[in-house]
Amino acid sequence: MRRPGLSGRGNPLRQTDGSPEKNDLALILSERECSAAAVYTLNRVKAAPIYVTMDHLEKGVAWGIVANSGNANACCPMSHENAEAMCLFAAQATGREAEDFAVASSGIIGQTINIQAVQTGVPKAAAALSREGSGGAATAIMTTDSVPKEVAVSLTLGGKEVKIGAIAKGSGMIHPNMGTLLAFITTDCAITPGVLEEAIREVSSKTFNRVTIDGETSPGDMAIVLANGMAGNEQIEWKDEDYNTFCQALAHVCRHLSRAIAGDGEGAGRLVTCRVAGARSEESAERLAKTVVSSALVKAAMFGADANWGRVLVAMGYSKAPFRPEHVDMSFESAAGSVLVCKQGDGLAFDEALAKKILSEKEVVIAVDLNEGGEQAECWGCDLTYDYVRINGDYRT
Amino acid sequence: MRRPGLSGRGNPLRQTDGSPEKNDLALILSERECSAAAVYTLNRVKAAPIYVTMDHLEKGVAWGIVANSGNANACCPMSHENAEAMCLFAAQATGREAEDFAVASSGIIGQTINIQAVQTGVPKAAAALSREGSGGAATAIMTTDSVPKEVAVSLTLGGKEVKIGAIAKGSGMIHPNMGTLLAFITTDCAITPGVLEEAIREVSSKTFNRVTIDGETSPGDMAIVLANGMAGNEQIEWKDEDYNTFCQALAHVCRHLSRAIAGDGEGAGRLVTCRVAGARSEESAERLAKTVVSSALVKAAMFGADANWGRVLVAMGYSKAPFRPEHVDMSFESAAGSVLVCKQGDGLAFDEALAKKILSEKEVVIAVDLNEGGEQAECWGCDLTYDYVRINGDYRT
Repeated sequence: MRRPGLSGRGNPLRQTDGSPEKNDLALILSERECSAAAVYTLNRVKAAPIYVTMDHLEKGVAWGIVANSGNANACCPMSHENAEAMCLFAAQATGREAEDFAVASSGIIGQTINIQAVQTGVPKAAAALSREGSGGAATAIMTTDSVPKEVAVSLTLGGKEVKIGAIAKGSGMIHPNMGTLLAFITTDCAITPGVLEEAIREVSSKTFNRVTIDGETSPGDMAIVLANGMAGNEQIEWKDEDYNTFCQALAHVCRHLSRAIAGDGEGAGRLVTCRVAGARSEESAERLAKTVVSSALVKAAMFGADANWGRVLVAMGYSKAPFRPEHVDMSFESAAGSVLVCKQGDGLAFDEALAKKILSEKEVVIAVDLNEGGEQAECWGCDLTYDYVRINGDYRT
Repeated sequence: MRRPGLSGRGNPLRQTDGSPEKNDLALILSERECSAAAVYTLNRVKAAPIYVTMDHLEKGVAWGIVANSGNANACCPMSHENAEAMCLFAAQATGREAEDFAVASSGIIGQTINIQAVQTGVPKAAAALSREGSGGAATAIMTTDSVPKEVAVSLTLGGKEVKIGAIAKGSGMIHPNMGTLLAFITTDCAITPGVLEEAIREVSSKTFNRVTIDGETSPGDMAIVLANGMAGNEQIEWKDEDYNTFCQALAHVCRHLSRAIAGDGEGAGRLVTCRVAGARSEESAERLAKTVVSSALVKAAMFGADANWGRVLVAMGYSKAPFRPEHVDMSFESAAGSVLVCKQGDGLAFDEALAKKILSEKEVVIAVDLNEGGEQAECWGCDLTYDYVRINGDYRT
């Protein structure tokens, strides 16, 4: 689906810090000023682009985003100046002001970004801007991602068609509840900055913040949403019915990206979903599910397609969420079927061959029922593989 | 060193749940009643031996410990009865009461322990009890450990020689600040149960609780100390000078075991120590150091002998401990030398070949200076290797 009024395009700039084959610069530009909101990493070590973007989005408006991959632009003496320079280059190439741009960087920490390469690249990216999709930008922001992540949906608000499109990158240094990852969401919805910010916070907490790859939070994580109003819907100014409809669509987009990021975690062989139901609160269900998909031992068992439910129960046990182990039922589920492995906290005899088959699928679900209430939550992660170790044993050099 | 009055011996019982070559039952017996104290896992899912041991040590006295490896005796309908039965078998074989024994189990969760094999094995273990060291018991409690962990020291209290000996197992499902691991410490020191409990709590918090292998806490973790008083020193009843001397020796023993456990973590190639100095509090230094040695990305970098200091700084950033990134200095150290990689939060140009050489040693130190105060702490972990994934991708089957 096209994203009217908003364009993103990768640029054939030669890679400065990674593979020479890869585009590494993305520019996203709106035809009009947008309501703009973002959520940022909670890591105490923040990359310079985080501070610059916070500053530029303070008024709640923006025109575009400039982003690079391969270098995090963090922990170098010139990081802040270079992040500001990226916005300036984007402004010069598009006839705007530096303050009209958000900036994001992802990659190696502590090495100075090749700002000359960015300076050369931005005008080329600007010249190549297109309304025909965001594939170029989705590719340009990839680091160790194996596939680009894109999604678009349309919805109807007051008889007007509204579109939401988004790209994201993930792969490593990803953990929920501390920040997010890199996600750029654009829409032609008319919505005020304040309400847009509430929407992205609310939706992130139930989507991006429920992904974990490795328990690590990057200093450059952020999710930005730009809304330029060109759909012509009556502007959303309150948390009314239109807001709810918009949030549902936004959640669909963010959930899609979250699952794509989890399934494409560094070295991942499968998408692992943990769904905790029967909880007394959504918060405790979320904490339990997150701890399970974060557990190195659960992740390693998922790599081995091993129905080692004891590790799931143990991970729940150290999550600090309240539950009664002796009430817990647990199954493993996938396209290949479902097998109940634990009832009221005790192990059952089960068909090991079937369990192996179920856990050998590309997408598997660890389904836990606490049998204590009506709330539930699901979180997404991936298995822990030899490739995760290989990729991260020598990422830098 | 012999441990007078206390004996441990593995038993040539055939393994019931693991390798058929391995002894899997340990019995430790004192010649006299001991002051007894323990610290236990904080996991909400606790194995049955934890509850039974808590119950049996409630009066602060015990005569011995019975332990098996290969099966955690957890999450099965008969787990509690089987843990009690192990103590009963130990009592029958030694002419004592079931309540005189602590019991511990380590291994697979959710499968019923072969209690007949234990029943057959305990009398054999009792018949083989010896004062000639604890090698048999140290071997019998191993699961995926590659080497047994033993240590002994002697100290002088009021002119009397006092000895402390200990065995431990570690390897996987190990994370600080939630519980410990399996450690059995014996001493002939005369010390009251209450003071002994204070000693093991104080020492554990600075030794066992500063080890992490994989962020996982086992439901069966515990450290037990038995003190039978046969050294003839004046009984330690207060936190006096003798108490401090005893604690120093106990800390030496526990630190030795902690480092041995970290260096022999599942699949580990090296012992990784993170020392955080210049902190405003020991607590924040400990939290920072723990988070660094827990980080999957730092552990993978250590596997690759990659001086990727940015990952260390990022891990500190999500630790939730207060510090100023812009004040941080960081070096990598080992027997091969030392290299400063970061000064006041910014990366330095450094000798990559030297850094590689330093990080290729069996024991490496990540040395962080916060430049904010006079407190420090160090925590121990290991690298993340292909073998960790291999071992845990198919531990159960």
